[in-house]
Amino acid sequence: MKVAILGVTGYTGQILLRLLADHPFVDTILPASSSKGGTALADLDPGLSDQIFSKTELCGGKILKPEEVKPFKPDVLFSPLPHLASAENCRPFLGSSVIIDLSADLRLSDREQFLKAYGEEPPCPDLLPKAVYGLSEIYKREIARADLIANPGCYPTATLIPLIPLLKRGYLQGKVVVNALSGISGAGKKAVENLLFCERTENAGAYSPGKSHRHVTEIESQMNRFSSNINLLFTPHLIPVKRGMVVTTQVSLKKGIQGKDIYAAFQEDYKDSPFVKVHEKSIPQIKDVWGSNRCDLGYRAEGEELLLFSVIDNLVKGASGQAVQNMNIRFGLSETAGLRTFGEL
Amino acid sequence: MKVAILGVTGYTGQILLRLLADHPFVDTILPASSSKGGTALADLDPGLSDQIFSKTELCGGKILKPEEVKPFKPDVLFSPLPHLASAENCRPFLGSSVIIDLSADLRLSDREQFLKAYGEEPPCPDLLPKAVYGLSEIYKREIARADLIANPGCYPTATLIPLIPLLKRGYLQGKVVVNALSGISGAGKKAVENLLFCERTENAGAYSPGKSHRHVTEIESQMNRFSSNINLLFTPHLIPVKRGMVVTTQVSLKKGIQGKDIYAAFQEDYKDSPFVKVHEKSIPQIKDVWGSNRCDLGYRAEGEELLLFSVIDNLVKGASGQAVQNMNIRFGLSETAGLRTFGEL
Amino acid sequence: MKVAILGVTGYTGQILLRLLADHPFVDTILPASSSKGGTALADLDPGLSDQIFSKTELCGGKILKPEEVKPFKPDVLFSPLPHLASAENCRPFLGSSVIIDLSADLRLSDREQFLKAYGEEPPCPDLLPKAVYGLSEIYKREIARADLIANPGCYPTATLIPLIPLLKRGYLQGKVVVNALSGISGAGKKAVENLLFCERTENAGAYSPGKSHRHVTEIESQMNRFSSNINLLFTPHLIPVKRGMVVTTQVSLKKGIQGKDIYAAFQEDYKDSPFVKVHEKSIPQIKDVWGSNRCDLGYRAEGEELLLFSVIDNLVKGASGQAVQNMNIRFGLSETAGLRTFGEL
Amino acid sequence: MKVAILGVTGYTGQILLRLLADHPFVDTILPASSSKGGTALADLDPGLSDQIFSKTELCGGKILKPEEVKPFKPDVLFSPLPHLASAENCRPFLGSSVIIDLSADLRLSDREQFLKAYGEEPPCPDLLPKAVYGLSEIYKREIARADLIANPGCYPTATLIPLIPLLKRGYLQGKVVVNALSGISGAGKKAVENLLFCERTENAGAYSPGKSHRHVTEIESQMNRFSSNINLLFTPHLIPVKRGMVVTTQVSLKKGIQGKDIYAAFQEDYKDSPFVKVHEKSIPQIKDVWGSNRCDLGYRAEGEELLLFSVIDNLVKGASGQAVQNMNIRFGLSETAGLRTFGEL
Repeated sequence: MKVAILGVTGYTGQILLRLLADHPFVDTILPASSSKGGTALADLDPGLSDQIFSKTELCGGKILKPEEVKPFKPDVLFSPLPHLASAENCRPFLGSSVIIDLSADLRLSDREQFLKAYGEEPPCPDLLPKAVYGLSEIYKREIARADLIANPGCYPTATLIPLIPLLKRGYLQGKVVVNALSGISGAGKKAVENLLFCERTENAGAYSPGKSHRHVTEIESQMNRFSSNINLLFTPHLIPVKRGMVVTTQVSLKKGIQGKDIYAAFQEDYKDSPFVKVHEKSIPQIKDVWGSNRCDLGYRAEGEELLLFSVIDNLVKGASGQAVQNMNIRFGLSETAGLRTFGEL
Repeated sequence: MKVAILGVTGYTGQILLRLLADHPFVDTILPASSSKGGTALADLDPGLSDQIFSKTELCGGKILKPEEVKPFKPDVLFSPLPHLASAENCRPFLGSSVIIDLSADLRLSDREQFLKAYGEEPPCPDLLPKAVYGLSEIYKREIARADLIANPGCYPTATLIPLIPLLKRGYLQGKVVVNALSGISGAGKKAVENLLFCERTENAGAYSPGKSHRHVTEIESQMNRFSSNINLLFTPHLIPVKRGMVVTTQVSLKKGIQGKDIYAAFQEDYKDSPFVKVHEKSIPQIKDVWGSNRCDLGYRAEGEELLLFSVIDNLVKGASGQAVQNMNIRFGLSETAGLRTFGEL
Repeated sequence: MKVAILGVTGYTGQILLRLLADHPFVDTILPASSSKGGTALADLDPGLSDQIFSKTELCGGKILKPEEVKPFKPDVLFSPLPHLASAENCRPFLGSSVIIDLSADLRLSDREQFLKAYGEEPPCPDLLPKAVYGLSEIYKREIARADLIANPGCYPTATLIPLIPLLKRGYLQGKVVVNALSGISGAGKKAVENLLFCERTENAGAYSPGKSHRHVTEIESQMNRFSSNINLLFTPHLIPVKRGMVVTTQVSLKKGIQGKDIYAAFQEDYKDSPFVKVHEKSIPQIKDVWGSNRCDLGYRAEGEELLLFSVIDNLVKGASGQAVQNMNIRFGLSETAGLRTFGEL
Repeated sequence: MKVAILGVTGYTGQILLRLLADHPFVDTILPASSSKGGTALADLDPGLSDQIFSKTELCGGKILKPEEVKPFKPDVLFSPLPHLASAENCRPFLGSSVIIDLSADLRLSDREQFLKAYGEEPPCPDLLPKAVYGLSEIYKREIARADLIANPGCYPTATLIPLIPLLKRGYLQGKVVVNALSGISGAGKKAVENLLFCERTENAGAYSPGKSHRHVTEIESQMNRFSSNINLLFTPHLIPVKRGMVVTTQVSLKKGIQGKDIYAAFQEDYKDSPFVKVHEKSIPQIKDVWGSNRCDLGYRAEGEELLLFSVIDNLVKGASGQAVQNMNIRFGLSETAGLRTFGEL
């Protein structure tokens, strides 16, 4: 397979490069970047290696300019560009390549939602209804037929995987109070003061609380597909890890629903999902999934109160890994091809 | 003043040493330890210095055994011993020294609460009703007259300071959902696998959720003094910082209560509190308070939903600093003597 | 292939499990542990997964006791046991399995060296001359025929790879001053106070200086094979990273030798080594190799002074990765099978 | 005393603010900044507090523009501006204030040295011979009479304190090989990619080796005052701590010089220095000095080889703390006024 990456300099692009280098069915990678087009891939990052470069021979080992990609006719186009820039750059490939947009441009199903979340008109409103939301475990069937996949955000991925099985069974009631902890790479590779080592180490705190984080609309939009009258309260926090995300969700159970029902729901929905691991008793932590494409789930029910725990590596299952998983699903490959189901130490 | 520390080898004891070394009204420190009694204080920790040792001349610069302390008749006895070991060791000093117990032994007002939280009989049940709960800003008047002070836990301190002004005004209703992030030093200086650098760095996760953390009883016990029918849900998390604690509290406002009322309540209750800083707009983070005795507060009200943010240095305001603050209050000294109101960088 | 691991609970064992799970020619893993024998591998570490467990069906997914391994007749035996315990446990497999001992027991060529370095008699002195030192790039030919491989230590690996090409060409003179920085996992998974998160974060320092670190003898023993009159000064430091090692070597060049000669020597000796990357101008850092089996080299020559820079991931190229590389070489497999040549982000 | 700080937004300026807030003889602080002039100090950094603000009443709690400082006639002017910008901004205060320049502008004794180190003409060549090098322990007498003090760099401070007593006694010979590890704050508060949390955590490496780091000229210039024929080799490394510096120096002893002579030299030269602590046996580490103005020394002699160990907090003894120490010396105050001799935990 021939795959292109529109943007290889950020963290998401760099993880994509590494995952695709390990992918048994990808033989050609076309790396592109608007800022680094023309330079040798070998000069981009000393962490890369021949194992990666050998798959870029088609473009002479060079990083392409975005506009140079199309003639190579990639089977898949990954776009980890920033929102408002991504969908437009993907449009020319519609019809010729399967598009996996890792930005937020195509994640919301209509114009109003986008406007509310991003304060601007969606860049390609006509494409919104065509895009399939790429939460792999939930929309596997739709993804298998999609030519335009909107890869989910990291917070929505970690929040929705435990919630959807319970929402669709009508197990929950009342407010859903989500507290999430994100590693710093979730903010991207931006040279801003707030992301400096000296500002983040020995530091942590909440940010963008209540309805203000953009991912809230994305999460609500998905929750509403499975249940009405959802009231989501979402508070993200930044913690000093490079990679990793912890989501703790507090919600009330409807009368009669018990812990064992939660476990059964997870088991049933995710029994064929190689990347979802349900902890029956322990509480998952970041190191269980660091470096893997897994989402680990835990839960604790006391009376009518339910706590849900989920952890992911924000750069893998929360971004590039799930994008590769979606490619695998779309092309009928083994879902785990090129992906790890176990965590790094 | 002459002060004794029953246990100088843990993190709390070491911070007490440093704070008291800087204290303008403390001239003599009597350091004690059951495991290190007899050794020179200078051999305990290379971070200490003459500035500290010069206050230990009375005991020849040596660490005392706990049983050697009494004859020195300290004005104040700090006990940062583990729970179930602390109160009993404090008892001999009753009547002769002001006792500040940093353990949980005397924090709960009755036997049943203790039994519920710790699964064992309280070590000194007769002392429970005599002890004043040392949350300095709330019980200043009682502390000023107390001879037995039960210094609060770190989670209760950071959780209660924002809640009490609102509880006592009857502003809140429904469940109180608390998510707390603690630095690793909150677990003490125990050589266990789970606290190793390699297990905690690039890692984070919830633990002891629901009603299972011992501090839940302590928080509820205090909340109940100001409001009835409290339903607390408390989920602590461990994050990879050495010192610091972040508490995010979600709760509903009673009809008619608005953000400005929250701010006004904080301002009114804490206007004379040098260690409470209310952020009007920004959200406090650990680095605002790291190394200081401060508790910084923030809030966000959207409709009837309220979020409260509070941060402390768990070893200072959450333990040793508040103990010194209580000593200051008890002896009529300046509340800030020997304590920092500003954070380290 | 069928491989056994005598000790899967430490960091080295856990990395071996992960590498072998990814290995295309390993179908069966026999995990063993003296302390955890009998328990399910799935209970050992939540970071593991079915991808790993599926290779342990032969032993019912259980961790074996060390004495239960032999009847399974493994093709390869990896022993990451502590020194003084490893060689003896390997001995019964002599003749039936290829043994890769990751401890120090068999790394020194004679009894006197061992006695000097470890202050005790070598556990199996008769085996010392039979073992091949498993520095893959240097002893590839010997390893290909060896049945007993002494896998090198992390400091020796990172120190010797840049030095040996220069020593054997006679390019160097005078003292060799090595300063090395090690990640904390180099000290293993021991629950001791000095390795706690709170003791290591925001901390660093030298330890075991001069001739006192045990790896000094190992490095000297190898240097002496390529050059006489070596005077090594080795100072290790502990730095707050989980994984990674930086070695900076200062030495004098013989008259007439220049920077270009250094580069040429590296190029010549390592042109067929997929895991050695020579930086022509930049200085390698840990993140270039973190998670990979690479050793990256850099150098700087000014007049007669030469600086050598080398970095490895201490758990991969410095331990488990090199062990797998040696297995690959021994069995005529692709040298990179199951191993990464590129760094994690 | 009235003190001004020309530049309060960087790490050095922020530490100066905190130290001077604690200083018993400083009643007025005049904070200035070219970029933040006019804004309230309270808006600069939520970590600051009334304890600090109360000393800025003279300027209405506002950050001054640099040009507004002079009319206030400060007793002392601290300038933590970048090199090439600092000396010129200090010049107007010559004669009216004691100037403590924390930049490199005035550290080298002549124009040629500056040109060599910085590749540009020194900004105020006429001032070079007038400035006293502010290495407090070495030049106490000169500092006590100086009106222009060039505060040393962090690397030179930690390198020279152990070396000078030995150089001036003629104990050393041959090359001096210095390997230094610096915390990230040594690079300042610059929003550049290389200093991001995600680039520095789990990473470390050498940089600017050999003669290329600017501090080499500064160190050599000082070493030459005490000994001729010095050959310095200096390799700095960046390690993932916020604050702290480790310097390991390897050098040869002249015939007959032994370990006890080294200890005696340190004892003799630093017996009256409250901020130098000599470890007789242990090796100092960053946590011994973190947050204090101390420089801790250790050594190890084996035959003719000597290793010297020194650690400082790069922002305190390596910058702002030493600046305050110099102010104390210059004004005949207690040398420790406003400074800590013990480390934070």
